[in-house]
Amino acid sequence: MQELSVLVSGDSSRWGRGAVSRVITLTTDFGYGDSYVAAMKGVILGINPQAAIVDISHSIEPQNIAQAAYVLSTAWSYFPQGTIHVVIVDPGVGSARRAVVLETPKALFVSPDNGLLTLVMKDLCPPGDRPDSSEDERPLPSGARAVAITNPRYWNHPVSPTFHGRDIFAPIAAHLSLNTPIDEFGEVVDTLRLLPIPQLALGSKGETIGHVLHIDHFGNVITDIRRENLRSLDVVIEIGGRQVRGLSSCYTDRDDLLALVGSSDHLEIAYRCGSAAATIGAKVGDEVIVRSCADG
Amino acid sequence: MQELSVLVSGDSSRWGRGAVSRVITLTTDFGYGDSYVAAMKGVILGINPQAAIVDISHSIEPQNIAQAAYVLSTAWSYFPQGTIHVVIVDPGVGSARRAVVLETPKALFVSPDNGLLTLVMKDLCPPGDRPDSSEDERPLPSGARAVAITNPRYWNHPVSPTFHGRDIFAPIAAHLSLNTPIDEFGEVVDTLRLLPIPQLALGSKGETIGHVLHIDHFGNVITDIRRENLRSLDVVIEIGGRQVRGLSSCYTDRDDLLALVGSSDHLEIAYRCGSAAATIGAKVGDEVIVRSCADG
Amino acid sequence: MQELSVLVSGDSSRWGRGAVSRVITLTTDFGYGDSYVAAMKGVILGINPQAAIVDISHSIEPQNIAQAAYVLSTAWSYFPQGTIHVVIVDPGVGSARRAVVLETPKALFVSPDNGLLTLVMKDLCPPGDRPDSSEDERPLPSGARAVAITNPRYWNHPVSPTFHGRDIFAPIAAHLSLNTPIDEFGEVVDTLRLLPIPQLALGSKGETIGHVLHIDHFGNVITDIRRENLRSLDVVIEIGGRQVRGLSSCYTDRDDLLALVGSSDHLEIAYRCGSAAATIGAKVGDEVIVRSCADG
Repeated sequence: MQELSVLVSGDSSRWGRGAVSRVITLTTDFGYGDSYVAAMKGVILGINPQAAIVDISHSIEPQNIAQAAYVLSTAWSYFPQGTIHVVIVDPGVGSARRAVVLETPKALFVSPDNGLLTLVMKDLCPPGDRPDSSEDERPLPSGARAVAITNPRYWNHPVSPTFHGRDIFAPIAAHLSLNTPIDEFGEVVDTLRLLPIPQLALGSKGETIGHVLHIDHFGNVITDIRRENLRSLDVVIEIGGRQVRGLSSCYTDRDDLLALVGSSDHLEIAYRCGSAAATIGAKVGDEVIVRSCADG
Repeated sequence: MQELSVLVSGDSSRWGRGAVSRVITLTTDFGYGDSYVAAMKGVILGINPQAAIVDISHSIEPQNIAQAAYVLSTAWSYFPQGTIHVVIVDPGVGSARRAVVLETPKALFVSPDNGLLTLVMKDLCPPGDRPDSSEDERPLPSGARAVAITNPRYWNHPVSPTFHGRDIFAPIAAHLSLNTPIDEFGEVVDTLRLLPIPQLALGSKGETIGHVLHIDHFGNVITDIRRENLRSLDVVIEIGGRQVRGLSSCYTDRDDLLALVGSSDHLEIAYRCGSAAATIGAKVGDEVIVRSCADG
Repeated sequence: MQELSVLVSGDSSRWGRGAVSRVITLTTDFGYGDSYVAAMKGVILGINPQAAIVDISHSIEPQNIAQAAYVLSTAWSYFPQGTIHVVIVDPGVGSARRAVVLETPKALFVSPDNGLLTLVMKDLCPPGDRPDSSEDERPLPSGARAVAITNPRYWNHPVSPTFHGRDIFAPIAAHLSLNTPIDEFGEVVDTLRLLPIPQLALGSKGETIGHVLHIDHFGNVITDIRRENLRSLDVVIEIGGRQVRGLSSCYTDRDDLLALVGSSDHLEIAYRCGSAAATIGAKVGDEVIVRSCADG
């Protein structure tokens, strides 16, 4: 009965009254061999049997917050309005680290406040006011609200100090999917923690210097240089001692290393029917240089 | 509103008026570590929140069309009438390669037209008229219809040239699940492309010569010799220099290599509590010879 | 129509009349590369399109019954009342081995009767009457009922002797989710088979001697020593020639091996941001000794 009254008194005009068939996504470093993910799903379905739970990935490298932040950033905006994204890479579980719910006009996020939402925050900021590597905390962008998760009323008790996914994040996501307002979960916070975001640099000859952000399942090498950072298509890209000339439009364009703007608008280096990362020996963090041919 | 009118005017007697709780399956080589699969699911649920999405597999070896064709062929017929199967192994994404929707009395298929539907086509052909290795294209079997995907109206714009799964196949599958007729997606086509299907050969002493089609998670070696190709149970099977005599009915029949007709009606070589493939050193494409003992 | 009459005449007061939106979980050693799991899901959705199917894990090591029993034991109690848990690690599939449905006040289980339900049975027994390593069979605990799966009426015919998951367990789970009473599936049985459960021993100096039960995705070493077996927090733990002193409350407590009571109430050895199992060289079955410092 408590659920129902929360539902009715909540901001039901926003997500639709009684719209309990909400999507909840899960992104974790829990892997597929244990029951950790399943226990979270059991808890969610016990609270909202109509929740549609979608796995984003559970093979984030253990404790790799930056990787989870990237994978989340390439998926969340494709989900329906009001989707609840639970993101857990949480080496500090059970310590004093803060956990949060972030509400934006398009989606809700539930996670430890350890930088997992860095790229979501970046997407929400206007282009001229994006966080850079010097910030480790940032005020919420306009239109967003957040609370620290402190109210134990919605948790699964007793709370295991090593598995907040099951005992705190899962029940909160399920209650959010029933339209419980975020203020129920704790007090309002004004800032979220950020990972340092490497910035693109401008070289002495006008070249753009970026970094490898992610290597995908195919071995495509995805960089932090975006479509908007490319001043022309007539470029030479240098990575790991290799040069790639020009931008292709698809993976079959040539039988060698090629560069293109990938599906998340990042410059990526690929290799037809093979792994560009293995061919180049590239790894996350490596430098990538883009020279415009017009720059000589 | 557009959806609704399509629904009502569509062939709703076939799948049931308003039957929006349809199953969509996904078979890809996208892996489990990136957000590619999740982005597709987000797009689908944004169009049809009631779609029941089932993963067949996302660990198809990158670019291995034949493996995906096999895995799909062992699953699709077990799904409910009207299930929509999305199959994506698409090295040619963004190039001029054709993509199709295939409608059959039992199921719908959405995929690049690169041979992924070869075994589905084979299943739909009458036994006396099945495709062989000389064909690389084939007219649709009786009762089936297909369209090339050319109408951009249902796509997710802008379409990434490297991720048609998210921007073309997912929205089309979702609209199909809402009963949009296939003719909405493009013009009718009469043929689909096939992979070369290796044929069984008859040896000079009456033996049947087949091939390894697939090696499963347990190391079971699955061949392209089917129950109907076995003239008796009193056989000797040769593979990789090893001989297996007789057919077993289950995996515990003996403590050595054994042969049986597996769950998809293919002859398979197994090893109790171990990997037959590792024991034999077998790989896809290897020759398998079946001699009937009656043949001497 | 047959479904409906079964539904109405069944024990519908228990799970709720017409409550067809039931959860079915799957735990298998089938892996993620073949279509075995998907074929089961297709069969289930063909019988109950409203079933909510949740994967617990499909990467149980092939034929490792004890591992599946453990993984199941850490998840099942977090699912809603009436959830149906299908558990398949079945090296004896197609042989004379028995298969069962177990009904308890909280959940239903469908599996081969080969020890997979050992830890579920243990959980259901009162603490003073738990099975030990000398038992290989045990009467059902109070409040539980079980049947042997013998009635072919609900099976998918023809039944493959190598894939009862698809042809027997999946359809039975789906019919259970439609409230078909368990007596429909076969005759009542009074006992279930157990795996030998290693017992904790008491050493000559009062120390507790246990074993490694599981190594999780993070390399945490989970033992069969439970919170209730620890007489104090002031302990020294010995494993693989290493000593860990005291109990921590979270993974960040120190930059070395640490011990804590994990999320399933078992003593576990962890290593901050690394694999304790790799650090120690621990494997399942290894001895773990806990000395209370009070014992000198």
